[in-house]
Amino acid sequence: MKAEWINPFVLSTATTFRQMLDCDVTRGNAEVKTGCQPTFEISGVMSLTGQADGTVVLTFSRDVALSATEKMIGDKPTQIDECVRDVVGELTNIVAGSAKSRIKELNLTVGLPTVVQGKNHIISFPAGVAVVSIPFQSTWGPFSVEVGLRER
Amino acid sequence: MKAEWINPFVLSTATTFRQMLDCDVTRGNAEVKTGCQPTFEISGVMSLTGQADGTVVLTFSRDVALSATEKMIGDKPTQIDECVRDVVGELTNIVAGSAKSRIKELNLTVGLPTVVQGKNHIISFPAGVAVVSIPFQSTWGPFSVEVGLRER
Repeated sequence: MKAEWINPFVLSTATTFRQMLDCDVTRGNAEVKTGCQPTFEISGVMSLTGQADGTVVLTFSRDVALSATEKMIGDKPTQIDECVRDVVGELTNIVAGSAKSRIKELNLTVGLPTVVQGKNHIISFPAGVAVVSIPFQSTWGPFSVEVGLRER
Repeated sequence: MKAEWINPFVLSTATTFRQMLDCDVTRGNAEVKTGCQPTFEISGVMSLTGQADGTVVLTFSRDVALSATEKMIGDKPTQIDECVRDVVGELTNIVAGSAKSRIKELNLTVGLPTVVQGKNHIISFPAGVAVVSIPFQSTWGPFSVEVGLRER
């Protein structure tokens, strides 16, 4: 995966958190994901197709998912429910859509997001796709963004 | 979701299992998926975009995933490992690609498959997308196929 494709996802994530959730985030060092490290408790998964194919995953600790939902709908849920899943899907949609418009040369189309929930769930990408994992810290807790894109 | 979009996925699944895995399957009654029922232990997720957008999920019990891997690579793994994840992703790819060619009017493009692993993991679709779940029984155990497509 080309290094210049990473920054659009970082910028889109930071902008989305700041503008939509009024939440500042700090990014850690991007790392190539090896093997099948578990993600956090809830993840939004969005497919990208175009001149490159791939996937972006936003994976949230419970506290981040619940607090983001509170910001979006006003009430803080006590557990991961349909509202929380919808918010995670919507945030994934927004970040993917925003990143797509920052990488115009790939003519990416985004699909519909799916949301995966479960303690220690693992999301893996196809063999041969290099995946970069970018850790973020927010006032609500940690989350991360994983991006894997393969040129056609 | 249109009823005539379901059968292509049923046919593609049965054909893939018979031709690639030498495994006959019996389908149960398709049901509209409500809420967030857990899937089996490992699932392949493939995004579809075109005149309709959506997702197909193949979700396998452990025994089905391990036996399918044995058929594909010769050795039967004792646990879900990278080989098993690759086989689940590849089967999802084949079923989605085959179903796509049976629903030509939607001009579907498939993305890259992702594979989700974890006991009692839940995969949910965006609000407003009707999802149909089709249970299958095979000699190796149960699995199911979930399809949600929304016309543009």
